[in-house]
Amino acid sequence: MRFWFESEFSEVFGLTEQPSAANADALYDQLAETVSSPAFRPRALFDRFRIAVLATTDDLEAHARLAADPGFAGRVVPTFRADRYMSPDEPGWAARLARLAGSAGIDTGSYAGLLAALRARRAVFAAAGGTATDTGVIDAGSDPLTEAAAARIHRSALAGTLAEADTVAYRRNLLYRLAEMSAEDGLVMQLHPGVHRNHHRSTYDAFGPDTGHDLPAVTAFTEPLAPILRDFGTNLVFRLVLFTVDETAFSREIAPLAGFYPSVYAGAPWWFLDTPAAILRYRRAITDSAGFAKTSGFIDDTRAFCSIPARHDMSRRVDAAFLASLVVTHQLGEEDAFGLARRLVDDIPRQVFRLG
Amino acid sequence: MRFWFESEFSEVFGLTEQPSAANADALYDQLAETVSSPAFRPRALFDRFRIAVLATTDDLEAHARLAADPGFAGRVVPTFRADRYMSPDEPGWAARLARLAGSAGIDTGSYAGLLAALRARRAVFAAAGGTATDTGVIDAGSDPLTEAAAARIHRSALAGTLAEADTVAYRRNLLYRLAEMSAEDGLVMQLHPGVHRNHHRSTYDAFGPDTGHDLPAVTAFTEPLAPILRDFGTNLVFRLVLFTVDETAFSREIAPLAGFYPSVYAGAPWWFLDTPAAILRYRRAITDSAGFAKTSGFIDDTRAFCSIPARHDMSRRVDAAFLASLVVTHQLGEEDAFGLARRLVDDIPRQVFRLG
Amino acid sequence: MRFWFESEFSEVFGLTEQPSAANADALYDQLAETVSSPAFRPRALFDRFRIAVLATTDDLEAHARLAADPGFAGRVVPTFRADRYMSPDEPGWAARLARLAGSAGIDTGSYAGLLAALRARRAVFAAAGGTATDTGVIDAGSDPLTEAAAARIHRSALAGTLAEADTVAYRRNLLYRLAEMSAEDGLVMQLHPGVHRNHHRSTYDAFGPDTGHDLPAVTAFTEPLAPILRDFGTNLVFRLVLFTVDETAFSREIAPLAGFYPSVYAGAPWWFLDTPAAILRYRRAITDSAGFAKTSGFIDDTRAFCSIPARHDMSRRVDAAFLASLVVTHQLGEEDAFGLARRLVDDIPRQVFRLG
Repeated sequence: MRFWFESEFSEVFGLTEQPSAANADALYDQLAETVSSPAFRPRALFDRFRIAVLATTDDLEAHARLAADPGFAGRVVPTFRADRYMSPDEPGWAARLARLAGSAGIDTGSYAGLLAALRARRAVFAAAGGTATDTGVIDAGSDPLTEAAAARIHRSALAGTLAEADTVAYRRNLLYRLAEMSAEDGLVMQLHPGVHRNHHRSTYDAFGPDTGHDLPAVTAFTEPLAPILRDFGTNLVFRLVLFTVDETAFSREIAPLAGFYPSVYAGAPWWFLDTPAAILRYRRAITDSAGFAKTSGFIDDTRAFCSIPARHDMSRRVDAAFLASLVVTHQLGEEDAFGLARRLVDDIPRQVFRLG
Repeated sequence: MRFWFESEFSEVFGLTEQPSAANADALYDQLAETVSSPAFRPRALFDRFRIAVLATTDDLEAHARLAADPGFAGRVVPTFRADRYMSPDEPGWAARLARLAGSAGIDTGSYAGLLAALRARRAVFAAAGGTATDTGVIDAGSDPLTEAAAARIHRSALAGTLAEADTVAYRRNLLYRLAEMSAEDGLVMQLHPGVHRNHHRSTYDAFGPDTGHDLPAVTAFTEPLAPILRDFGTNLVFRLVLFTVDETAFSREIAPLAGFYPSVYAGAPWWFLDTPAAILRYRRAITDSAGFAKTSGFIDDTRAFCSIPARHDMSRRVDAAFLASLVVTHQLGEEDAFGLARRLVDDIPRQVFRLG
Repeated sequence: MRFWFESEFSEVFGLTEQPSAANADALYDQLAETVSSPAFRPRALFDRFRIAVLATTDDLEAHARLAADPGFAGRVVPTFRADRYMSPDEPGWAARLARLAGSAGIDTGSYAGLLAALRARRAVFAAAGGTATDTGVIDAGSDPLTEAAAARIHRSALAGTLAEADTVAYRRNLLYRLAEMSAEDGLVMQLHPGVHRNHHRSTYDAFGPDTGHDLPAVTAFTEPLAPILRDFGTNLVFRLVLFTVDETAFSREIAPLAGFYPSVYAGAPWWFLDTPAAILRYRRAITDSAGFAKTSGFIDDTRAFCSIPARHDMSRRVDAAFLASLVVTHQLGEEDAFGLARRLVDDIPRQVFRLG
């Protein structure tokens, strides 16, 4: 956080003094003046930051307005999320299904209808420039159900008679179906399992979701993803990028999976792990089994627009330090390292996410 | 161990030769003469080691005698342990309850009596200068029971009709109650879960407990501590210091918990992990999510009085090396690092353990 | 892999150019000519590589022919494997039992017969120069069964009425029995648990076992090995070398076990972990609790004969780098480090594996 702040203050906003009690008012005034200038409008910063592609998880309407605006030529693409339909026990599930039905123009009252609506929406996202999906689940379990079994749970959930054991089975089946759809339409599947959400109930009640009370859980990939990988792991259309906040999975699960399965990529260190020390541990843990080309490239996953340059700069410096450590121990030639330093931030993420 | 020995021999006892078969007798004689001199009496060493506070888990009688002795002005404080009352299936549980009743003057034949006796003894420990408790449990499970359910198990245990499943429920409830008491009386709760005790039965039978046959277990914090943290995690009186011998918990569980909950602190690397290499891994794994102020400061947990200077010296050097690594990579200013090097061994542990 | 290739090309085959599209044909011709020369026959390379002992898991017939051949004086020893008899639910189990009966001359139709046949074959392997066994199991569970219970499962498996729960019990009992035999005959027990075999079914169907689709699993040692260690852990004849592909076990389980139990040794980093970075992590994680003398020495576990020098050279360099890091931080004297660098590759592995 300190690095982000210092980097933003200095590189983005042009402050030249260390913040302190003595200069707080002066720096505040300087910042307020700076951010109100035209050069600090989001689109100007988008150009200044030289962002090649920005992917969001917003809905499509804003994307359509932006695409239609002749005043902006940047590439901002949507990312499809289906996790909101995966937990039939959660409040609002039926309402979200109804909204999905409305936007897709397909009745989601049946399980087959839900799958059809998801397929339809994925196509619309792809048409709007999207190349990837994102799914956050508590675990990566992916056992498929028969159509009859899934349809039965779907009906019982809408009827309010859902059994608890069926909740998990429904979610895991739907994860499998999302992989199946990715193997059909080629949208890159990003998976973010293993977060214990809303650990502190009263903070959640006071401030809502995504306000700091989420914590890492022990996370497995090899066993729970076996059904998906059995059926799509060597499928050339399918692509799966795995993220974790449990770093023991890097060398034990994610790297070996990425080393064997053509479809699997090791996602960048995420959330609690997108720090210089953790990124270095990631490269050390991942590279021996997965190399460089099977890693995703840095994804900052930020909600703070102005932190983007700081975070990518940090990630590049750490990767460069890692490459340098290989060069000085004669494990990599200097020319290869120069090439990789560039490929890691350009060619490889473009290729992984099918950015053309 | 080698470092401790070398440091003790050289710094504490003034030996100047490497021990060997040739000089063994001479060194033995020199040591025997040295330790019998008045300068090597425990109180003299206490002053020489410049110990600010020493916390023990002895009973209170020795503390009372020491406090009453005009010849000693050092600060030696007791630490309250309740773990001996938590396992109703263990031999001697009823006898320990009876002893507790005797020292508290409160009948512990009922569950409510046990809680009252614990509260009373905690107050006596606090009055004797204690600021903390210590609890060693096989796991950190902390689900509270209703008073009726806990009372029923308590009765069945005393009647010799305890069901096995109730043992675990009883222990986890009592851990919750100890947290509840800490949130009332402000004694800092230290938790040491995750040790598989007496792994080798015949060594245990021959030599007794705590003689080397204890081993680390896989240890979880985030899930099992959820009940305690839900109810006391943001309580300003409550304070919880978490220790582990499973180092995967540092970045995945302990640091994120300490980062979110005001009450939670990351305990120093413990037992198998209080070595230069492991302490460095601890700082690297903990700092990004928990910073420095939410760590406990080094605790040597030793039964070897003369190893105290060696172990603290080692810990300080490792922390200094870690701070230096942040300075040379421009992640921390040199002045800040100097300040932290001091705060880590003085201000921070004083504040964490409410040492005034 | 890159290091192995470069090292083999350069050190073993004498290539002096980096492979490229331009020189591919020329290098191929050069290699083809090189490997057909008498100096590149396996026995010549055995001498050139200065291999002191080579242990294989082949059957005994080839060993007998080699021993009888006056043209070869190298030490090549067999390693006994019993894992093929441990899973009564696997296809071919009964056939393998029948083959064992044939080679041992003992009926394996009964459980007692199986144990007798295993003992007989172990004796034959030992007589042929073998000093160790190797066992690969999905987990390290080792609960012994009564003779009656094991005999019952044995009969049901041969009768085709095996219950699924009995499969696991049978395997774990047999692991205990193998340890019991090692405590009798002194063959060093090597244990390789924790590999999820044949994760990708269709690759397995196309290419067979051991062709890349095996992946690491979460692996435990302390709990599952408790029965074996309770009964044989301090037995001076018994010796157990533990290997893992889950590196979290190094500091949490394997090193503490090796530190306490005289019989337990920490096996070299294996498979996914026999890389420079992982070997360094192994030394850092293992040394504090297990020291150097309780590690196995490097085992390359390779099926690529010509990679042996490259892999041992790499391992020695990494160990030397680790020792050097201890010397420069004043944790080890330079003379001790020189001695250890040699002992790690000579005295220690000879002693661990009872190579005389």
